[in-house]
Amino acid sequence: MSDHRWKEEIIELGEMGRKDSARVTEFEDLNLEKGLYRLEGTEKSKKSKEYIISKMESAGLEVRYDKVGNIYARKKGSKAGAGAVMSGSHLDSVLNGGMFDGVLGVVGALEAVRRMNDENFENERPIEIVVFMGEEGSAFKKGLLGSDVAVGKRSVDEALSLTNEENRTLEEALRGLGQLGDFEMDFSGIEYFVEMHVEQGPVLDREKVPIGIVENITGITWVTANITGQENHAGTTPMSMRIDPLVAASNIVLLASRRANEMVKQFGGSTVATVGKMVVKPGAPNIIPGSVEMGIDIRDGIEENMKGLQTEIIHAIKALAEQYKVDVALDIPIYHPPCPCSGTVVDAIEHAAKGLGINAKRMNSGAGHDAQNVAQKVKTGMIFVPSVNGVSHSPLEWTNWEDIENGVAVLTGALKELSKT
Amino acid sequence: MSDHRWKEEIIELGEMGRKDSARVTEFEDLNLEKGLYRLEGTEKSKKSKEYIISKMESAGLEVRYDKVGNIYARKKGSKAGAGAVMSGSHLDSVLNGGMFDGVLGVVGALEAVRRMNDENFENERPIEIVVFMGEEGSAFKKGLLGSDVAVGKRSVDEALSLTNEENRTLEEALRGLGQLGDFEMDFSGIEYFVEMHVEQGPVLDREKVPIGIVENITGITWVTANITGQENHAGTTPMSMRIDPLVAASNIVLLASRRANEMVKQFGGSTVATVGKMVVKPGAPNIIPGSVEMGIDIRDGIEENMKGLQTEIIHAIKALAEQYKVDVALDIPIYHPPCPCSGTVVDAIEHAAKGLGINAKRMNSGAGHDAQNVAQKVKTGMIFVPSVNGVSHSPLEWTNWEDIENGVAVLTGALKELSKT
Repeated sequence: MSDHRWKEEIIELGEMGRKDSARVTEFEDLNLEKGLYRLEGTEKSKKSKEYIISKMESAGLEVRYDKVGNIYARKKGSKAGAGAVMSGSHLDSVLNGGMFDGVLGVVGALEAVRRMNDENFENERPIEIVVFMGEEGSAFKKGLLGSDVAVGKRSVDEALSLTNEENRTLEEALRGLGQLGDFEMDFSGIEYFVEMHVEQGPVLDREKVPIGIVENITGITWVTANITGQENHAGTTPMSMRIDPLVAASNIVLLASRRANEMVKQFGGSTVATVGKMVVKPGAPNIIPGSVEMGIDIRDGIEENMKGLQTEIIHAIKALAEQYKVDVALDIPIYHPPCPCSGTVVDAIEHAAKGLGINAKRMNSGAGHDAQNVAQKVKTGMIFVPSVNGVSHSPLEWTNWEDIENGVAVLTGALKELSKT
Repeated sequence: MSDHRWKEEIIELGEMGRKDSARVTEFEDLNLEKGLYRLEGTEKSKKSKEYIISKMESAGLEVRYDKVGNIYARKKGSKAGAGAVMSGSHLDSVLNGGMFDGVLGVVGALEAVRRMNDENFENERPIEIVVFMGEEGSAFKKGLLGSDVAVGKRSVDEALSLTNEENRTLEEALRGLGQLGDFEMDFSGIEYFVEMHVEQGPVLDREKVPIGIVENITGITWVTANITGQENHAGTTPMSMRIDPLVAASNIVLLASRRANEMVKQFGGSTVATVGKMVVKPGAPNIIPGSVEMGIDIRDGIEENMKGLQTEIIHAIKALAEQYKVDVALDIPIYHPPCPCSGTVVDAIEHAAKGLGINAKRMNSGAGHDAQNVAQKVKTGMIFVPSVNGVSHSPLEWTNWEDIENGVAVLTGALKELSKT
């Protein structure tokens, strides 16, 4: 197991992201003080990106920044004019984040290329490593920012004029760090994209399956509801004269959970529905609430199911007006359809795992990734490795080193197959 | 209708309680800026109490402060050694409160005595007007404070050492305002107590009944529950792997409401149950909640019913641990049994209303009152007048002047009857 390179790189990138530069090499070293703060536009970002660029250059790759700070590093292919195989992820973290989210897909792609180099593997297609900027949205408030621009969902100008907490524009921040290029990647020259990532959920860890092959990046939609009743004295207002928005809202919490559970059984899919936000005002035990603000997150790998559940929940919320005499205001602030992965890429990942004798299962990604943007232009797949206890976006995020080696090996195999497909 | 005295007094006491001394004479004058801030220990309290004392003295009454600042004003009776008939309420307000809560019972009792004087009515028993201090608990954080001490539920020393927001003790505050007496009322010398009060609920206003005769001051108990699950990613955590405390808690909201409704139908009583507090953390739509904090208020005029519903709710919360795998921590921070009113006093109020041809209904008080303390020592009853829209503890609290006149007339009649009973 030629792990020394990639393991040391992940550990060092972790050090570069922590406030106190703490070095973490084992799960036992972790604690809640050891979170990463590698936000775009910071010195931590500059140091980390310069570090990975030097490693890419050492591997003989040609490295360029594009106009919004995405990094591309190319290994030439042997077949003239063939579309490239792209792989990579991001280096920015959430506030107080973990050391594997994003980093794994960048270091993994670099390691895969180095292994091809070591073996003198002749890739017909070029291999293009990518480091998307601003995936987490932690500095400039828009998630998937770099890949949004790369695939043309958001203009360069719009992105560069976004501002961070210090009211600096992205353009100023990138220029200050020397991360502003003048090149634009043409995705018509990319044939495949593979992103390796930590699962960020409990499934692989719980089921002891080392590799997840993503078939769908889940669709996601949010429904927000403001339910207004009549704030009143809890002692003097008889039950029959109440308009209690919390009683009304509680039906929706139960409905969302029950229907998502039923749909998983019915369709065998990945339906989830969550009421994560519920603000009850004024919030004293002896006052009948006057209003409840709900935020509901609905996801499914199949758009029809997601839409169906969303419609059902919206109808139920609207029906509260009749049933409980409450006023209801609804909004749908987020709607992203699911993003199916490419059968060719899924197969290549599966072949690689089988060839290595590594157990793998097909699954959906419940979180959003740059891959869902790239998939709009390019045949795309994702490789998941287990997240210990399903934890991510936390200082306690961890993936075992042997699981990373499995992931790197499968990624290398898949990229090799795709480079000749 | 000899309303000039009492109406002007209520209006002036309203002015004395408002920050800007605004004068409100009609419902239309009210707005959310016109709340009262007559907290114990303030200049507003001093001015208001000195005002009412001067009115009491003008009516020929002997006025005294007791050791914790309760005011007693006595009209002598004609029958030597007969126990007194007490009537009154409080003058302190909640923060941003209304102009009738408490004031009505004080001014009403004073007006009743003046009418007796005007008519040369010969009361056998003495009439004792009381102004209890600190009923609302808005300054010294303990509700019913003055009546607690008066009936011996709390010691004088304990009360005097309580502190307000400015960290002044009650003793310092009362001494500074000249409200500290050295006398202790002996409740064995009191035979009856009648408190007139605004309903603070919607029943009389909704049903267009001008007088409520309180048969029971409701019992009240609070159950607080901390329900803890597993905070997790709403996208990557399958439904089957969740421990969602909000889904668990929502069952309790519905159960409390449904069972209280059923009990009202079953027993025809005043059962109410309210989940007024529900804090869901961390509170983002895309995070499965980690914890829910609930505050549940349960009231009933019959202790057995209140206790029964409380037990049912507690069992249901405990059952969540099994059903949803959540952790549950429970507390009962408040438990006050219901307080039945005296049949003699209830009858006297009913006779008075009938004699005047005023429609009245027997009901329970859903709010707590000093009367529930006094009732532990003395035969007690309450007269309710309608609260417009059921609103109280708000700048928008209002009772129509003609309803107050009805209340004063019924109170006068009841006190007259009781003074000879």
